[in-house]
Order: sequence, then C-alpha cells, then structure tokens
Amino acid sequence: MTKNAVVLLSGGLDSATVLAYARSQGFECYCLSLDYHQRHIAELQAAKNVAKVMGAAAHKTAQLDLSLFGGSALTDDAIAVPVSATEGIPITYVPARNTIMLSLALAWAEVLQAQDIFIGVNALDYSGYPDCRGEYVKAFQDMANLATKSAVEGKTITIHAPLIDMTKAQIVTLGTELGVDYAMTVSCYQADSEGEACGLCDSCRLRRDGFFAAGLADPTRYKMHA
Amino acid sequence: MTKNAVVLLSGGLDSATVLAYARSQGFECYCLSLDYHQRHIAELQAAKNVAKVMGAAAHKTAQLDLSLFGGSALTDDAIAVPVSATEGIPITYVPARNTIMLSLALAWAEVLQAQDIFIGVNALDYSGYPDCRGEYVKAFQDMANLATKSAVEGKTITIHAPLIDMTKAQIVTLGTELGVDYAMTVSCYQADSEGEACGLCDSCRLRRDGFFAAGLADPTRYKMHA
Repeated sequence: MTKNAVVLLSGGLDSATVLAYARSQGFECYCLSLDYHQRHIAELQAAKNVAKVMGAAAHKTAQLDLSLFGGSALTDDAIAVPVSATEGIPITYVPARNTIMLSLALAWAEVLQAQDIFIGVNALDYSGYPDCRGEYVKAFQDMANLATKSAVEGKTITIHAPLIDMTKAQIVTLGTELGVDYAMTVSCYQADSEGEACGLCDSCRLRRDGFFAAGLADPTRYKMHA
Repeated sequence: MTKNAVVLLSGGLDSATVLAYARSQGFECYCLSLDYHQRHIAELQAAKNVAKVMGAAAHKTAQLDLSLFGGSALTDDAIAVPVSATEGIPITYVPARNTIMLSLALAWAEVLQAQDIFIGVNALDYSGYPDCRGEYVKAFQDMANLATKSAVEGKTITIHAPLIDMTKAQIVTLGTELGVDYAMTVSCYQADSEGEACGLCDSCRLRRDGFFAAGLADPTRYKMHA
C-alpha cells in the first residue's frame, strides 16, 4: 500500500532532492510551497516544474504575505541581501519561516490522513538558521503529535529531514543518483524572473561549493555580470 | 519598562478576555488575527473593534486561505456546522489552526523583540480540540525556543494561556471585572454579517451557558428565528 506524505518544496536544490528521496522510498508525494512574498519568486515557478517532472501526486502553493511582519532581507525590500559572508545568523533569516511552513504541512497532512512530512533542512552546509537543526525538527514533531485530532487518535506524525546531517556535496550526489535535474531548481535569494542566479549570495555560494566538492558539473544558470 | 506581547485575537469572547488580562498585567499588546476564510467573517470585524476599544498598540490581520486544504466545517462550505452536541472532536475542528496561528505570532514576536505571546485557549468548557490543551501549549513553547534567532540568542518565548484551566463562567466573570464589553465579541461559528449569533452551535452553547453559570446577563446579539 502506498503511503501519502506532504513534502515541503521550495523550488531549491535541497527540497528537490528530498522529493526525489521520498519518491524513492515509495511515498505518494503531496508537495507544498509557500508564497510568502519572497524576493525570489522564480523559486515558486521552479517548485511547480519540479513537482510535475518528479511525479508529485499534487502540488499546492499557500499564499501568506510575511512582509506583514517584515524583519528579513527576503521579505522586506528595505533590507538588502548580503553578498558576502557575515558573522552569526544572517539577515536573510525569515522569522519562524520553517515553523510556519511545517504548520501548514501539518494541516494538509491531517486532511490527507498522511503521517509523514518531509523537509529539506540541513544543519551542515547551511546559513546557521536555528530552524534548520535536528533538535528543532524533533521539537516540532513532539508538538505536532499533541496538536492534531489525528495524532491524539493514534495516527502520529513523523517529520523527516533526510538531509539534516549531509554536506551540500553529499546532497547533490544523492540527488544526481536519484535523477534530479538541478538545472530546474532555483536556490538564489535574488534570482531574476527567469530563475537566473546571482552567484554571489550565501545560498548561491553554498550551492556552487557543493557541486564543486562533489566533482559534478554545476548546471545552475547564472546571470551575466557586466 | 513596558513589555511588548503578541496577543492572538479572534474577535471571540475568550481572546477579548485574554487581551484585557494582558493589558492588566502591563503589556503593550500587538494583536494578531487570522483571516483563514472562516465562515464567521464577522469575527474579524469584531477583533478589529475589540483591539481598538481595548487599547491595543497595533492590530494586524494575516491572510491565509485554509480552504486550500479543506477538512473542516469552518473552512469547507460542503461541510455543515453541527447544531447539536456530537461525540468526540467535532467537525468544526480546523486542522492545525492554533499551530498555524501561534507560528505567525512567533514570527511577529521575533520582529517586535517581544518574548510573550498570549492565546485564549481553554481546556475545560471547550470543544475537545487537541490544540487547546496545556500539554500542547507547553510543547509549542519548547519548540518555539529552538526555532528562532531571538530564542537561540537568549530571548526566550513564553506562551501564556491564562484561561487554560478556567470555566466559561470564570472567564466571563474575569472579563467583566476587567471591563470587557462582550456585546462587541462574536463567538458563533455561523454568525451573520452583522455579527448576530445563531444560538445553536457548540460555540454559542458554551458561551450562553457561561453567562448563565456566572449569573451575568448575556449581551450576545442573537438572530431572530422565525
């Protein structure tokens, strides 16, 4: 019997790999993206394409304008995306973003009677975001299992974060083995409307270094710089 | 020094009481409502009025269409609101609603540098929703304190649920002492556009019984039934 899972799909490299992984484990995948009025809107088109090509059972995009609260370079136009490494947690951190996305996944999972949620966080080659760590994922799972009607009736939820301890190089190696076409994915924090990447932001750097370390060609489409 | 708090404000009886309580404790209150395309849209207008009259520092309404997932009588027009008591958790339960609302409150709290979030859940005279229990609130707080940049930097979050162990009668007594005008609040799951209550749904029954048990006049505006 196939099992349903909700897969958080941003349109970036990590979540595309997670979708391929969940499919390889036999899950029917219900992919969820969040339009939170992020700068990098090309990501959402990429998510749509990735879901289709990789055989998702369904794909939904929830609309939630997080610029209502501000406080991040990704949602507040008044704050620039940094193009060099910074100390501490960078300004591209979006307050409570993964908590909000997992909460939405939890809602959909309950309606689908799915007991599995996949998220592409990883705590190794990452930007230091607190909601990308294993202890956070575990705490969310504990909370989720007290939160829903399904859980209290015995259908407990597992939050899968299969990339959590992997390097970017290991992630792209896994995805390549599973047939992910990374040219379709968009990681850049300030990709243009065509999905072309800046090559300079934290997210671009982590991604490029990953392909390099894995000895794989980087299929990312970069903007031409004058 | 005044402290900032985010107060989840539905426009109903409980959250109005919580706002009055938080104000009485000296908090500057940033009130957050969620337009999740609920049937009872009059609730949101009530929230706006309540925030204004009760001296909120600000009031925001986040837009998030939970009918995207369906699965509840409050968001799915194909499911009727029950007008008699039912066994178990009723169909008016909205999957993961409080988790989603607390997640949004967490995001705003972090931007405001607030360390306190108030929610009007109670686990005594309630509809049996799992996300209204103390153990759930505690688990959310534990998760929140691993989720955000502020928390990992030492500004931990407290989720206050001051009504959690109170009866509806105790709640309306407290609110009345604190000067809440309950005529402004809307609890009914199927209130009309004027905010008039059906008097028949679970939420109306709990509210009416509360005023009766407290020996207080019920100021609720009910629809005239033919």
